[in-house]
Amino acid sequence: MDKPKKRHWKIRLHEIIYEADTSGGKIFDIILLVTIIASIILVMLESVKSFDAKYHNFLNISEWIITILFSLEYIARIITVKKPFKYVTSFYGIIDLLSTIPKYISLVFGGIHALAALRALRLLRVFRILKLVRYLGASNTLLKALRSSRVKISVFLFTVVIIAIILGTIMYLIEGEEAGFTSIPTSVYWCIVTLTTVGYGDISPVTPLGQFIASIVMILGYGIIAVPTGIVSAEYATQSKANKIIEEDVQLNSQSCSNCLSEKHKDGADFCYNCGEKLH
Amino acid sequence: MDKPKKRHWKIRLHEIIYEADTSGGKIFDIILLVTIIASIILVMLESVKSFDAKYHNFLNISEWIITILFSLEYIARIITVKKPFKYVTSFYGIIDLLSTIPKYISLVFGGIHALAALRALRLLRVFRILKLVRYLGASNTLLKALRSSRVKISVFLFTVVIIAIILGTIMYLIEGEEAGFTSIPTSVYWCIVTLTTVGYGDISPVTPLGQFIASIVMILGYGIIAVPTGIVSAEYATQSKANKIIEEDVQLNSQSCSNCLSEKHKDGADFCYNCGEKLH
Amino acid sequence: MDKPKKRHWKIRLHEIIYEADTSGGKIFDIILLVTIIASIILVMLESVKSFDAKYHNFLNISEWIITILFSLEYIARIITVKKPFKYVTSFYGIIDLLSTIPKYISLVFGGIHALAALRALRLLRVFRILKLVRYLGASNTLLKALRSSRVKISVFLFTVVIIAIILGTIMYLIEGEEAGFTSIPTSVYWCIVTLTTVGYGDISPVTPLGQFIASIVMILGYGIIAVPTGIVSAEYATQSKANKIIEEDVQLNSQSCSNCLSEKHKDGADFCYNCGEKLH
Amino acid sequence: MDKPKKRHWKIRLHEIIYEADTSGGKIFDIILLVTIIASIILVMLESVKSFDAKYHNFLNISEWIITILFSLEYIARIITVKKPFKYVTSFYGIIDLLSTIPKYISLVFGGIHALAALRALRLLRVFRILKLVRYLGASNTLLKALRSSRVKISVFLFTVVIIAIILGTIMYLIEGEEAGFTSIPTSVYWCIVTLTTVGYGDISPVTPLGQFIASIVMILGYGIIAVPTGIVSAEYATQSKANKIIEEDVQLNSQSCSNCLSEKHKDGADFCYNCGEKLH
Repeated sequence: MDKPKKRHWKIRLHEIIYEADTSGGKIFDIILLVTIIASIILVMLESVKSFDAKYHNFLNISEWIITILFSLEYIARIITVKKPFKYVTSFYGIIDLLSTIPKYISLVFGGIHALAALRALRLLRVFRILKLVRYLGASNTLLKALRSSRVKISVFLFTVVIIAIILGTIMYLIEGEEAGFTSIPTSVYWCIVTLTTVGYGDISPVTPLGQFIASIVMILGYGIIAVPTGIVSAEYATQSKANKIIEEDVQLNSQSCSNCLSEKHKDGADFCYNCGEKLH
Repeated sequence: MDKPKKRHWKIRLHEIIYEADTSGGKIFDIILLVTIIASIILVMLESVKSFDAKYHNFLNISEWIITILFSLEYIARIITVKKPFKYVTSFYGIIDLLSTIPKYISLVFGGIHALAALRALRLLRVFRILKLVRYLGASNTLLKALRSSRVKISVFLFTVVIIAIILGTIMYLIEGEEAGFTSIPTSVYWCIVTLTTVGYGDISPVTPLGQFIASIVMILGYGIIAVPTGIVSAEYATQSKANKIIEEDVQLNSQSCSNCLSEKHKDGADFCYNCGEKLH
Repeated sequence: MDKPKKRHWKIRLHEIIYEADTSGGKIFDIILLVTIIASIILVMLESVKSFDAKYHNFLNISEWIITILFSLEYIARIITVKKPFKYVTSFYGIIDLLSTIPKYISLVFGGIHALAALRALRLLRVFRILKLVRYLGASNTLLKALRSSRVKISVFLFTVVIIAIILGTIMYLIEGEEAGFTSIPTSVYWCIVTLTTVGYGDISPVTPLGQFIASIVMILGYGIIAVPTGIVSAEYATQSKANKIIEEDVQLNSQSCSNCLSEKHKDGADFCYNCGEKLH
Repeated sequence: MDKPKKRHWKIRLHEIIYEADTSGGKIFDIILLVTIIASIILVMLESVKSFDAKYHNFLNISEWIITILFSLEYIARIITVKKPFKYVTSFYGIIDLLSTIPKYISLVFGGIHALAALRALRLLRVFRILKLVRYLGASNTLLKALRSSRVKISVFLFTVVIIAIILGTIMYLIEGEEAGFTSIPTSVYWCIVTLTTVGYGDISPVTPLGQFIASIVMILGYGIIAVPTGIVSAEYATQSKANKIIEEDVQLNSQSCSNCLSEKHKDGADFCYNCGEKLH
């Protein structure tokens, strides 16, 4: 009699952690979101020297609280999933682990500065918030439009890089070292800065010929921005029309299979479309 | 016999102040617009040290004239509305009050500099000019397109912020303090400056690896600008088609109910759709 | 017998100067274009101190040649038009005159520097090249799309200016004089520089709060660029469809009436649609 | 019996070098691509002083290996084509030759720095990678959209240049030399930097009037970017629809005629559509 009860407890926890449909699941997701944002703000504040000097203890204790919360969440996720190994080796599983260990490592090796690199990875945890975005956009026209124009945008970006290399080399030969065009890679960097209309101004042409070519680069960059925009606009419009027909037929929910973690089950589905496991 | 006459006077003033259809209302709106623009220019000129030193008296007197005009308008608005409390607590009511009081406060406390903060709020009064825009755009496709793509644009902006946080942290670790990347918040600020193609140049990468990642950030920013543009374009086109059908049926006017202040009444409507008050 | 011959000569000259259909007219337009571009390059080179010092005589003589050519063209235009007064007082007539006189004035008053302002007006002559553009775009969808979205783009630009004023004032209060935000007009200028993603970097926020608000301004500017693009895209698409029907029916030519200068006559038209004058 | 065998060997090599359909052809293209990218990276690294000082020998040997590989490829291309003269004088033929000779010239004249100009041309070889893009985009809507909006975009860019000249001259007269507006060409350069929203900040207005006009230039530049985007969006959408019909009918492959080098043959075609040569 003990076993089914325990299983029931696991199923409920699985629902709370992995699904967003029940009220418990929603509250868990919101708390997780707030904790992640708090952890990011903590890492940010720690990097501000003047703030760290003043509130070092507060930051340290807060870090420990969040580390423990993240550790508990990590353990709970492993327990409630049927195939823990699959979770541990998944993208989110690795990020979850990497988000918790830096503080433990700092305990052994002291506050080595190089560990900050590992801490930065904790920020990747924010992507899990995107899981919500994924639900929101289950039948999202935007994602479909981006996917169908992926090849075209890649070709476009590749062309931009080639133009940057050629024009960057030309500018290196024209402007020379005095104007800051110290090497071809630096010139290519300048060319990308200009083509994308960012324009830092740390490197800028000084010779008349250099300024003339720079003007061409700018107008080129100003003009070719129309290309990705045009692609996405048209694809999005096409997807919008196509979606209206599809959306009326299929309704997906935010449930996640407790066996294989696959998502986007149809409303009213009783078994996982991927592994055949019963859905709760 | 006195009361109906007085009521008639109030109704006429209400028409002038709150409506833009009669010639009196139009003249009032234009004068109000000119006064608001003049008051903004005055605040601007006052902030220019050299100008203020020369023409201090002129600026002071002009300020008083505008303050008195605004006070009279505020009183007139309260008198002519049936439910003055509703107006006083409304968004425009609060702005109207806050636009007038700074000068009176300066009388008591002297020209304290901190009051400039309150004066800045007077600029929000310009939004009332947008009321005209609202009339102009009663059946505005643009507003509808923006409203229907609000969620998608929010998701997009949220993604931009996440990218800025992750890439900003990476740049902080790569570039370090010498290049101006003094803390993670500063690096994130730099990343937003670069992603949005603003590119001040107050902070810019100096290491080859930093410049390489910066190039990726720029091309990313250059590419993803296509996303909101594509959304708005497609939504706007959809709304344009939908509107053509609707616009032929309904005609809204710029009348405003003297009781509940609700607007956008149908042409020829005799009673307010919101509270049932007779429209004049 | 002499009079009709003289009239014939005038008509032929009118054809050459005012029309672009005959081979003579085309040659004249090309020569005029080259001369205008040469005159602009001359004014540009004159402004380069080092170049002017070296080749002053060459520049001076070239200026005189172009001034005489422009004078002859101006006189020819007056002679061949039936109503010279109308040409002289027209937009192009005034520009044509202003493009020629600065050199004559410099003869009397010496090379006064203030005359450079008048010389700059010569550059407006380039707009006459746009006459070609006008022919090219007689049934231009682009111009129609811009015209029909004029009001919407104006409202959009007006909103941008209001946002710039409000956010500029807030930044003035936050950043203060040390960061370069010396007055409200300067702050509004900074805000426009940022909103439009130009980002000079001559003024940039230094306080954390200022950088935070600046980030919002940037993301705002990055997002709202989608609005005019969306409008023009949709309007252009609409005009494209509408035009296909119209274009099949009407064919306009580049003839210009010798009496009233009106253009865009239908192919095969024998009389001016505006004044009834016979077309040649 | 020897001749047909030899011919067979040539045909196979032609297939490998000029076509991308066979597995041999694909491997050749990938190796070529990697070699070109390696050669570009080599030229880039050579331009970095500190790197060149350290690894001069490694760079020199690598350069020789790539030069020999490119030479062999060039010879193979000449042998396998039926009309070698046509290849040698073609765009890619000239680039292929120019990509190989700089190293040989440096052998005779020593490492003269001026040869770097010729080396830069090697980068143009990257365009051959675009041949792949061409295959990928045989029936590419994007290229068609760009081609059909070419005239409109040219007119647009021409207008941008005229606006830059006029506003640049006005800014030169207003700002003068102190702010960096040293000559009209420099001012026009500044105006293009601003209009295209690049905004280096090397030159920026300091007078109130100059900043006011600069603001107008920025808002203008911010607004008119909608024009090319709108054109490409609409044209792309039109081409997308048109293509769906065409694409169903015609299938093009990546074969190239061994006689006249013409490409884009229909699937199943046995003879070249251009010269009638039998296709293998």
